[in-house]
Amino acid sequence: MRARPHRPQALLFDVFGTVVDWRGSIIREARTLGRERKLRVDWAAFADAWRAGYRPAMARVRAGELPWTTIDRLHRMILDDLLRQFGIAKLGEEETDHLNRVWHRLRPWRDARAGLARLKRHCVVATLSNGNMALLVNMAKSARLPWDCVFSAELFRHYKPDSECYLGAARLLGLAPRDVMMVAAHKDDLFAAKSCGLATAFVRRPLEFGAGARVDLKAERAFDINADDFLDLADQLAAKKR
Amino acid sequence: MRARPHRPQALLFDVFGTVVDWRGSIIREARTLGRERKLRVDWAAFADAWRAGYRPAMARVRAGELPWTTIDRLHRMILDDLLRQFGIAKLGEEETDHLNRVWHRLRPWRDARAGLARLKRHCVVATLSNGNMALLVNMAKSARLPWDCVFSAELFRHYKPDSECYLGAARLLGLAPRDVMMVAAHKDDLFAAKSCGLATAFVRRPLEFGAGARVDLKAERAFDINADDFLDLADQLAAKKR
Repeated sequence: MRARPHRPQALLFDVFGTVVDWRGSIIREARTLGRERKLRVDWAAFADAWRAGYRPAMARVRAGELPWTTIDRLHRMILDDLLRQFGIAKLGEEETDHLNRVWHRLRPWRDARAGLARLKRHCVVATLSNGNMALLVNMAKSARLPWDCVFSAELFRHYKPDSECYLGAARLLGLAPRDVMMVAAHKDDLFAAKSCGLATAFVRRPLEFGAGARVDLKAERAFDINADDFLDLADQLAAKKR
Repeated sequence: MRARPHRPQALLFDVFGTVVDWRGSIIREARTLGRERKLRVDWAAFADAWRAGYRPAMARVRAGELPWTTIDRLHRMILDDLLRQFGIAKLGEEETDHLNRVWHRLRPWRDARAGLARLKRHCVVATLSNGNMALLVNMAKSARLPWDCVFSAELFRHYKPDSECYLGAARLLGLAPRDVMMVAAHKDDLFAAKSCGLATAFVRRPLEFGAGARVDLKAERAFDINADDFLDLADQLAAKKR
């Protein structure tokens, strides 16, 4: 027996990895920078290291070891370390700041824009990301993502998977948690949302960590939907009874 | 000498009266309800009384006399009084709630949608309204308003004209106040924004309070722009140097 045969009224999207291809986007842009500035760097390793620094940095905020710090600032702290680690000494402040904001210019997965446009016809589509508001708004402009509304951990001063994020977004939408569905390529995000009473949709993104990486793509019965991309998600939601 | 010859990077819009015609929308919908339920009410007076209750109600929140209360809730408190005052006893809870949410279904002024679409090409367009998030998101869906981002007083737990709203929105956008322009049909909103360092655009809405009402439509040199509607605002912004 399924507990939720009805369609959600709002979908909340994780962004990094679920909507946009952070790894491919960073590698592409950093390679261009590398050519221009004659830097010999393994940019795939650089992108992976940047992303790998993200969870520990957030964990320091979640544990209260750092005061509230935006992702832009955390990204910059990690980047400053990486520039030393990868022996990149040529970049001035303006170039470094521009590189740090590559996260504002990440490109969407192929299905994301069309999928969101379809989903938006029937319900509210919003971000629920650990990215800060400015990052998400700038990304939406550059990637032309048609959000109805942008929610960030920054609004709640709690990073996912803290429950304040999921419950806070539902509250701001004026909806009961069960009428809101979290959409993510990461199971920990979905399990946290589910424990707050939200519906959940897992979207497989096999290439998030590159072609060779091992990623857990297994469908879970615990989630309301397991989908191959946003178009498949739209199909499966359309098939649900109201 | 003009202090700001450059174009703003983001525009923040007051909503009630500036983007949408609250009075015309409420009268239209309430008249239909009145015909269906055979109510004899002066709906224009009803709409005006509803709106007139709004400032005193917010003032009670701003003064700390009421705890933080959303506009949906304040609207409902005022509505409950008005139903008694206008002798409307026939409405059940569901109908009353639906009527209260007429504010989620307000219709835009004729130029609003096209004007926002044009302005959105060059800068971030966002709400900065005392309406709560759910109200603004639902309104954007029903009125097809193409916001990049929805900001509400609810995020700051301060109602305009408290400075927390203007400075909070600029902060969340990652912009200096001077790179953000407040757009409103109400001068008090603009003067408050200006005192926080924001740029300002006054948009004349002569019909906000009905055809007969006296409204202050005089251009002010204190504002960066005085415009007749959103298309005129787009023209004037395009003429500014970057």
